Amino acid sequence: MRELRVIGIGPGDPRLLTLAAVDAMQGVDAFFVLDKTETTPGAESLVDLRRQICEQHIRGDHRFVEIADPPRDRRPDDYRAEVLRWHAARTEVIEVALLRELGDDGVGAILVWGDPALYDSTLRIVDAIVARERLPLRVIVIPGVTSVSVLTAAHRVVAHRVGEPVHITTGRRLASTPPDDDRNQIVMLDAACTFMQTAAAEDEIWWGAYLGTPDELLIAGTVGEVGERIVRTRLAARERHGWIMDIYLLRKP
Amino acid sequence: MRELRVIGIGPGDPRLLTLAAVDAMQGVDAFFVLDKTETTPGAESLVDLRRQICEQHIRGDHRFVEIADPPRDRRPDDYRAEVLRWHAARTEVIEVALLRELGDDGVGAILVWGDPALYDSTLRIVDAIVARERLPLRVIVIPGVTSVSVLTAAHRVVAHRVGEPVHITTGRRLASTPPDDDRNQIVMLDAACTFMQTAAAEDEIWWGAYLGTPDELLIAGTVGEVGERIVRTRLAARERHGWIMDIYLLRKP
Ligand SMILES: C[S@@+](CC[C@H](N)C(=O)[O-])C[C@H]1O[C@@H](n2cnc3c(N)ncnc32)[C@H](O)[C@@H]1O
Ligand SMILES: C[S@@+](CC[C@H](N)C(=O)[O-])C[C@H]1O[C@@H](n2cnc3c(N)ncnc32)[C@H](O)[C@@H]1O
Repeated sequence: MRELRVIGIGPGDPRLLTLAAVDAMQGVDAFFVLDKTETTPGAESLVDLRRQICEQHIRGDHRFVEIADPPRDRRPDDYRAEVLRWHAARTEVIEVALLRELGDDGVGAILVWGDPALYDSTLRIVDAIVARERLPLRVIVIPGVTSVSVLTAAHRVVAHRVGEPVHITTGRRLASTPPDDDRNQIVMLDAACTFMQTAAAEDEIWWGAYLGTPDELLIAGTVGEVGERIVRTRLAARERHGWIMDIYLLRKP
Repeated sequence: MRELRVIGIGPGDPRLLTLAAVDAMQGVDAFFVLDKTETTPGAESLVDLRRQICEQHIRGDHRFVEIADPPRDRRPDDYRAEVLRWHAARTEVIEVALLRELGDDGVGAILVWGDPALYDSTLRIVDAIVARERLPLRVIVIPGVTSVSVLTAAHRVVAHRVGEPVHITTGRRLASTPPDDDRNQIVMLDAACTFMQTAAAEDEIWWGAYLGTPDELLIAGTVGEVGERIVRTRLAARERHGWIMDIYLLRKP
C-alpha cells in the first residue's frame, strides 16, 4: 500500500519543526508540493521555504514533485460551491500525481504550513482520494505548531483570560461572531483588517505578520490606539514584500 | 538581568518537541517545576515525563528545582476569585525560587505542557512577577504543539468544515456556548463528559485521551452511537491509571 505523510511544519520559523516532523521526513520517496504561484501572492517564498526545510533535515535522496494548483475564483458568487469545486479539481491532480510518482509501496509526503487541522485543505483532499477507492492509501498525520501559538508566544500572552473560551475565526466570518463569543477571538485569513469594522476602540488587539521569519512585525494595544497603525503598517509591508500573512487576537475588556 | 524561558513541550509525545524548544533547553541553569502531586491526580507522571524530556535533550549540566504548588480549593463558591488567589500564591513561591536559585545573569526555564497560550497559568504568573518589579526579568516564550492539534492529527480530521470558525472551550463552559457557535467545538478540561448533557444524538464527536502516549485512546462517531462508550471507556481508564487527560471535538451536522 502507498503511504502518504501529511506533515505540519509550523508557520514559518524552520526551528518550529518538531522532532516527529523531522522523523517523518526521512524515507520519503517524493514530496508533493502544490505550486500556488499562479493563484496565491507570496506562494513562491513559501514553496522555497519548504524546500529549504527539506534540504536542511532530510538525510538521503529525495524528490520534489510540483503540482500546478488548479485555477480558483477568488470572488465567487457562491463561496462554498466554488471552494468545493476547486477542492475537487485539486483532488484529481493530486491523485494522479500519487499514482504516477509513487510505486505500490512508495512513501509520499505533503508538508503543510502550521498545523494540518487549521484552515488547510490537504486532509480534506486526502479524505476525498481515500473515499474514491481508486488508490489504496495509508495516511499518517503529524501535528504542527499553529500560527495562533506563534502569535501568542511572540506577544507573550495567553489566548484567553482565566477559564474563558477562545474563538478562532476568519476575516470573512468575524462580523458574524455571536455577541457572547467575542471575548477572545483569533482572526486568520483577514485581507481587510476587518477588526476596524467590528471592534470597539477599547478592545485590545495583538497583531503579528510574517511571524517567525526575519520580517516579523508585531503591534499591540487597544484598537483605538493602534488600529490605524496596524492598517498602515500592513499596507506598507504588503506593498514592500508583494504579499503578507498576518493574524491577530482581539479581546473585549 | 535574569532570563526566564517559558518552553512549550507539546502535550505528551516527546517527539512533538520542536527544534526551537530543544535549543531553548540548552544553557539553562535551573528548570523550575511546580510540583502538583498534592493537588492534581496524575501530576507525578507528568513531572516524570518532563524530567525524561530534559534528560534526553539537554547537553551539559542542569538542575531541577521543584516548587511545591500552593493548595487550591477545587470546588470554591467563587471560581474566579479562588483561581486569582491561587495564582497570587503561586506567583509568590515562584518569584522566591527565581531569586534564590538564579544568579543575577542566570537563566531559568519552565517547561509547559502543550502550548503556553492555552489553559496554562505560567505566563500569567510570569507577568505578575514582572509587574511587581522586584525582579528584573527577560522573558522568552517558545510556542508548542497543542493537545488540540494532536487530537485532530490522531483522528486525521480538520478542526472545522470549509471556512467555519472553531470554538475552544472547557467542560465548565460548554453548556453556555451561544447557539450559533457550537458548530465546531474543541472541549478541554472536562472531567464530566459534559457533551452527554449538551450535544444532540446526531452530533459528531472525536474523542482522545492520553494522546501521544503509549496509553492513547481514540473514539469517534456520532454522540448517539459512541457517547455511552466514551463515558464507560473514560471511567475505566481513569480507574486503571488513577488519572486521565482527555479532549474532544464536537461538530453539529
Ligand atoms: C491558510 S491559513 C493556514 C494556517 C495554518 N495551517 C496554521 O496552522 O497556522 C493561513 C493563515 O494563517 C495565518 N498565518 C500562517 N502563518 C503565519 C505567519 N507566519 N505569520 C502570520 N500569520 C500567519 C494567517 O492568518 C494566514 O492568513
Ligand atoms: C491545563 S490544560 C493544558 C493544555 C495545554 N497547554 C495544551 O496546549 O494542550 C489540560 C487539558 O489539556 C488537554 N490535554 C493536554 N494534554 C493532553 C493529552 N496528551 N491527551 C488528551 N488531552 C490532553 C486535556 O483536555 C486537559 O484537560
